Amino acid sequence: MAQLFSSVKPTPMLKDELDIVIPTIRNLDFLEMWRPFFEQYHLIIVQDGDPSKVINIPEGFDYDLYNRNDINRILGPKASCISFKDSACRCFGYMVSKKKYIYTIDDDCFVAKDPTGKEINALEQHIKNLLSPSTPHFFNTLYDPYRDGADFVRGYPFSMREGAITAVSHGLWLNIPDYDAPTQLVKPLEKNSRKFALSLKQPILYVDAVMTIPKGTLFPMCGMNLAFDRELIGPAMYFGLMGDGQPIGRYDDMWAGWCVKVICDHMGWGVKTGLPYIWHSKASNPFVNLKKEYNGIFWQEEAIPFFQSVTLPKECTSVQQCYLELAKLVKEKLGKVDPYFITLATGMVTWIEAWEELNSDEGTEAKAPNGKNE
Amino acid sequence: MAQLFSSVKPTPMLKDELDIVIPTIRNLDFLEMWRPFFEQYHLIIVQDGDPSKVINIPEGFDYDLYNRNDINRILGPKASCISFKDSACRCFGYMVSKKKYIYTIDDDCFVAKDPTGKEINALEQHIKNLLSPSTPHFFNTLYDPYRDGADFVRGYPFSMREGAITAVSHGLWLNIPDYDAPTQLVKPLEKNSRKFALSLKQPILYVDAVMTIPKGTLFPMCGMNLAFDRELIGPAMYFGLMGDGQPIGRYDDMWAGWCVKVICDHMGWGVKTGLPYIWHSKASNPFVNLKKEYNGIFWQEEAIPFFQSVTLPKECTSVQQCYLELAKLVKEKLGKVDPYFITLATGMVTWIEAWEELNSDEGTEAKAPNGKNE
Repeated sequence: MAQLFSSVKPTPMLKDELDIVIPTIRNLDFLEMWRPFFEQYHLIIVQDGDPSKVINIPEGFDYDLYNRNDINRILGPKASCISFKDSACRCFGYMVSKKKYIYTIDDDCFVAKDPTGKEINALEQHIKNLLSPSTPHFFNTLYDPYRDGADFVRGYPFSMREGAITAVSHGLWLNIPDYDAPTQLVKPLEKNSRKFALSLKQPILYVDAVMTIPKGTLFPMCGMNLAFDRELIGPAMYFGLMGDGQPIGRYDDMWAGWCVKVICDHMGWGVKTGLPYIWHSKASNPFVNLKKEYNGIFWQEEAIPFFQSVTLPKECTSVQQCYLELAKLVKEKLGKVDPYFITLATGMVTWIEAWEELNSDEGTEAKAPNGKNE
Repeated sequence: MAQLFSSVKPTPMLKDELDIVIPTIRNLDFLEMWRPFFEQYHLIIVQDGDPSKVINIPEGFDYDLYNRNDINRILGPKASCISFKDSACRCFGYMVSKKKYIYTIDDDCFVAKDPTGKEINALEQHIKNLLSPSTPHFFNTLYDPYRDGADFVRGYPFSMREGAITAVSHGLWLNIPDYDAPTQLVKPLEKNSRKFALSLKQPILYVDAVMTIPKGTLFPMCGMNLAFDRELIGPAMYFGLMGDGQPIGRYDDMWAGWCVKVICDHMGWGVKTGLPYIWHSKASNPFVNLKKEYNGIFWQEEAIPFFQSVTLPKECTSVQQCYLELAKLVKEKLGKVDPYFITLATGMVTWIEAWEELNSDEGTEAKAPNGKNE
């Protein structure tokens, strides 16, 4: 950290170490817009609905596309842990990846511009976040001390300046913020954009910061623009059971966020939030969202205190062990709130079994039939 | 919060409810620069060194100036709790104030400009921070949800959206960051400025955000640009024993920050950090600083884990009770680290006694002889 002149080192772009996971692609403009940034990476596309529907991926991309038939074929009965007709199915992509890092992004998220008008390379910033340490054990008032030009402020204990390994990089959104249905309904005109902000003489909400979420603090993790170290925290990145046949939607990433944060805290790893921004192009329908969310809105009032008070036993030294312990506690404690949580706890166990199967040395080769490896 | 159109309400400027506390004024340009912002407020100046030295305050300011003789006269033997020849003496100003809010600023801090070139009214932003709630119990990824144009993101529990009362607003600094002596020594050229940032092609470190420091998380509180609700947290804003006759300096605000944060967490109050920025005009001498800091650099490695693990008993329902309990624990636990902490614990108790004396209904009238009330 400490050095006479800060040098701005080029970021290694991890071409062979990172997969991009996308849940369906309804809008092919999405890939065209990201082409300069994504073309060098392998894409894993997980089709969330009708497997007979054909998605035409433009030329030049290296990808594997998995539909429901592929998931069923690869996982067999364990496919029950993967959501159907819901973007939560994306977590199947985390499982079949063989890379160290994952970046996942929604297909309505486009390249954003920073306040100087420059296009933001979201992946580059996520990689910076993941490759530099975190500070979960003490707060730095000048945000990420590992960023170029920044440092630890006076009073930051020297013994903590090595920081912790970063497991997750949570990026934000310009234009349409990630609001729940009730907030969308009451604020139909609000957008987290420079233009909107200026039109109302409000501060520009582009916040030029990355920060670590402190140990012991939960956060609402959004799956729209999210990167993580799959080798570290992958087995906890389960997006739950949502969509078809389930009484809840739009809580897939929240669920993963609560589990991941509790486990990162236990393991001593860091979770960062802030930069990079993407441009979230359109708000989803608040009426549809309300239908998906209403159970979650009640349940989170029980689930969050549960996760806030969970402590994992010292004997849990791997993410898999932590996650199975968490599944047990979910069944025990949240099962009383609604039987859904008993189903979900079962899904969590199945997820770990499937993860182990695919990721052990003797694991099934999860080659997609629709893939195109260039 | 939720509303169809965000209206930008004018900030009440609390003219009769806020005192500005300044530890000595070595540079009268300081007051001239701040005149448009400070002239309507009452200033409390606490002279930190030789009481025979005369400080000429320019015309037009409403102020009281206290030197060491005044402190000795007003507090009698209890004056022992107020540091001499150190800016830590500023906390005497918190004690003699009769206002609800305090803003304290160093005399080398000038008016900063935002990225659009507009002068920042630091007080206005501090008042905004103090008058709007905090979110210490759950993290909002879009920063302060009470700010104009912002809100709570999806997954933020509705039961927590009322937030908590804000007790402290910690502002930041452009130009010279608040670094410790070792960091100053190894980075002599670094400044947290737009110009510097651009010259090194680095990100501009003006971060347009206010955020709550989560419950359970300590932070390095800097006294350069700090506002707080004196009626709530004043009795815990003791800047300790530094300077003349003490083995430590430059830990006055840190000490106050650790105590304040632990007590705010216990009382359920919030602490915000971020905006506003001031322009920190010059770095203090790193060699002098190292001499002041070196004990603190060792001791903070013990003190911070102590504060991280402290829990105050439920019976402590006032800040005074919390603070006396903390003094007892400091003596017990940190007294083993160095006898200085036994002296400090005694100072903490004396501070509360003096606070009670001056702030009870029958309290001594603490009129300064050098005051000028207009």
